[in-house]
Amino acid sequence: MGMLTGAETEKLHEEYVMQPWAMQGRPSLPVQKAEGIYFWDYDGKKYADMSSLLVCTNLGHSNPDILEAISRQMKSMCFMAPAYATEAKSTLAKLLVEAAGADVYRRVFFCNGGADSNENAIKMARMVTGRTKVFSAYLSYHGATLGAGNASGDWRRFASEIGGANGFVHFMNPHMYQDGYTRGVDDEACTAYFLKALEKQMHFEGTDHIAALIMESIVGANGVILPPKGYMEGVRALCDTYGILMICDEVMAGFCRTGKMFGWQNFDMKPDMITFAKGVTCGYLPLGGVIVNAKVADYFKDHVLQCGLTYSGHTLACAAGVAAVTYYTEHHICDHVKKMEAILRDFLNRMVEKHVCVGEARCIGLFSALEIVKDKEKRIPMVSYGVKNPIMPSIMSELKNRGFSTFGRENNINICPPLTITKEELKEYLPVLDDVLTWVDETYCK
Amino acid sequence: MGMLTGAETEKLHEEYVMQPWAMQGRPSLPVQKAEGIYFWDYDGKKYADMSSLLVCTNLGHSNPDILEAISRQMKSMCFMAPAYATEAKSTLAKLLVEAAGADVYRRVFFCNGGADSNENAIKMARMVTGRTKVFSAYLSYHGATLGAGNASGDWRRFASEIGGANGFVHFMNPHMYQDGYTRGVDDEACTAYFLKALEKQMHFEGTDHIAALIMESIVGANGVILPPKGYMEGVRALCDTYGILMICDEVMAGFCRTGKMFGWQNFDMKPDMITFAKGVTCGYLPLGGVIVNAKVADYFKDHVLQCGLTYSGHTLACAAGVAAVTYYTEHHICDHVKKMEAILRDFLNRMVEKHVCVGEARCIGLFSALEIVKDKEKRIPMVSYGVKNPIMPSIMSELKNRGFSTFGRENNINICPPLTITKEELKEYLPVLDDVLTWVDETYCK
Repeated sequence: MGMLTGAETEKLHEEYVMQPWAMQGRPSLPVQKAEGIYFWDYDGKKYADMSSLLVCTNLGHSNPDILEAISRQMKSMCFMAPAYATEAKSTLAKLLVEAAGADVYRRVFFCNGGADSNENAIKMARMVTGRTKVFSAYLSYHGATLGAGNASGDWRRFASEIGGANGFVHFMNPHMYQDGYTRGVDDEACTAYFLKALEKQMHFEGTDHIAALIMESIVGANGVILPPKGYMEGVRALCDTYGILMICDEVMAGFCRTGKMFGWQNFDMKPDMITFAKGVTCGYLPLGGVIVNAKVADYFKDHVLQCGLTYSGHTLACAAGVAAVTYYTEHHICDHVKKMEAILRDFLNRMVEKHVCVGEARCIGLFSALEIVKDKEKRIPMVSYGVKNPIMPSIMSELKNRGFSTFGRENNINICPPLTITKEELKEYLPVLDDVLTWVDETYCK
Repeated sequence: MGMLTGAETEKLHEEYVMQPWAMQGRPSLPVQKAEGIYFWDYDGKKYADMSSLLVCTNLGHSNPDILEAISRQMKSMCFMAPAYATEAKSTLAKLLVEAAGADVYRRVFFCNGGADSNENAIKMARMVTGRTKVFSAYLSYHGATLGAGNASGDWRRFASEIGGANGFVHFMNPHMYQDGYTRGVDDEACTAYFLKALEKQMHFEGTDHIAALIMESIVGANGVILPPKGYMEGVRALCDTYGILMICDEVMAGFCRTGKMFGWQNFDMKPDMITFAKGVTCGYLPLGGVIVNAKVADYFKDHVLQCGLTYSGHTLACAAGVAAVTYYTEHHICDHVKKMEAILRDFLNRMVEKHVCVGEARCIGLFSALEIVKDKEKRIPMVSYGVKNPIMPSIMSELKNRGFSTFGRENNINICPPLTITKEELKEYLPVLDDVLTWVDETYCK
């Protein structure tokens, strides 16, 4: 590398790269390097990565421990096929089972990313139960391959529905703010309403036809949607009642993002399968997987696991994973997240009070979003669901121009910085968001 | 790494890892290091990797150019999100378009491996054509996620069929030896028969319902099945006639494996989309993708490409890809493969003459397989299709015990060494196979 200028890098990208979720041939910012919570473009402009890219660089960029682990692994081998045992794969499997709880969880299936972790969890659930249907939430995203895409809830699933896949059933999950509830007041009523509706739908789909229910433990890309108190425990109880395997998608919420190793550890329940990716290596290498409990693991003692891929348990990726998972524990990242959460939460709550464009703030750990509205009193979102509108992209651009990089979907602005962010860095960059929200108030909420 | 013994590595693997395509809790050989065409277990025993693991380590293990490229990229950043342009991604996209032919091909979509490369190609074909059905061959393997699994032909698709996906139609592709033809004599008759059957099936499925036809350009994992002369060109012509997009799966056959950069370059035809993985990085990092022609690329100029994943265009993986693709060209690997092919082919033909257990040898480049039979005259395979039988695994074990590592499916023994293998290495290890075939003759063909 270092052969091209920024302009050349950008031109080749525009000409040759198929850009995900976009029309092709449009400009993209060329990035030259990244370290800590920052990255730099070719003009030397610095950006604070306030979304951990796509909520994956949990330990920031160029973490020396992870780099060192990759370098060390490269000295013996980069990759050995799944049939062989390697120290990196064996060690990471053990670390992950222990992180989830070795009293309940037993084994790890490794794959390359979030989509195929969910693909494989669904496939295992169908094999174990002999049932075919898969329940998933409308407010969700699980990936874009055929199975993960059909399980997803937001509009990104539509192209996966061309031709279609059988047995994917969507249910509506609660979004307290949008549904007119008040958090901390109406939780019990909201939970009761949504659980009753879910159970009724299960009966109409045939409870003994349902293999799995898959949910993000904290809904991520759709706006860090915190479930009402008791909801996740209630879903787990329904799964228990009807013999349905519960899969928690921890692709975003996992690895200390919420101040716990896994998002579901914020609730009084345990899923049967945990899917993960992103934070397991902080994206330094592609890696994903499924942690399974004894019920699932035991089934495959005497049944062939009909899942596989060339890169299952990729040696170099697992070495990065061992370094990252060890770092979370040894550096007490969850504790640090809890401290930074207090600062972030205070700030976000102030934004709700101060800005007419901010309807709600949701925050758990360093996983947070602001809900942008055009009518605060009536909770009318800035942009209607599924409608193309330049307002939210213009807010993201305004933030980026000021060196605050993040992303959002629908009416959300996500604030999910690297978990290693310091108090000083938070205090430097959060005021940038405050300023931009003032600009939003003045520009769009008159 | 270096903290565990081989026994400890093996024990943790047995206890904590979900082993693909297997029952769990079985032993696995722990591997300590790999270099060139070799890898070593913890007892210091050396194995020649005569299958390039799963036909992926095309440039052997620990290739210094690829290692150097990874190390260099790590100095600036390991990963930047898909929305940003990076030198590694831009450069690799251009190299791949040029390798496929910039007169016809335009853009590259990047993903993590073979399965999702096929998932995304199928999804694009459905978006571009507005049609739903996907034709694929029974003698094929395209991956194990829901879409790739349903497109696959061999028994590994069955678990993907639980619940099922719509629009996947399988056709029978030719296997001259098993179908009773003589290669070099009956090609025209065989091609005519299979094309007529395929066209008839297309009519019965509704030609204007078929979005895509996906094929491995050379069927790989099912036994390096060489198509009869004219067949691939005939399939392309049918696709042209009925407006069907043709996808060539180059996951195994690509990157000089057959002595050409891509397997389809052995034929007088060009697919609309080329899916790749494995050889693009030699497996050093997970990477896959789809190279698309102008028709597909142009469609997405003004339609949103509804495909995406966090790791699309992964920076470190693309850096490894740039190094590997550059190495193939600068070191004239295709020329070397053609030279080594002559030695391998001669040897394999001698094996057919010498051993009663060898029914046929198929070889193109360093992509080859022997078909093992129990009755040579009647071409009766050693093991019936889909039947569990310990004979073939026992042959693989016998080879491995003698330091010759490879894999096979059904009745095949694959011989697909790293493309950098030398004449001397071939001449050292091929006699091992000869010896084991003598043992097979004596043990199973009396």
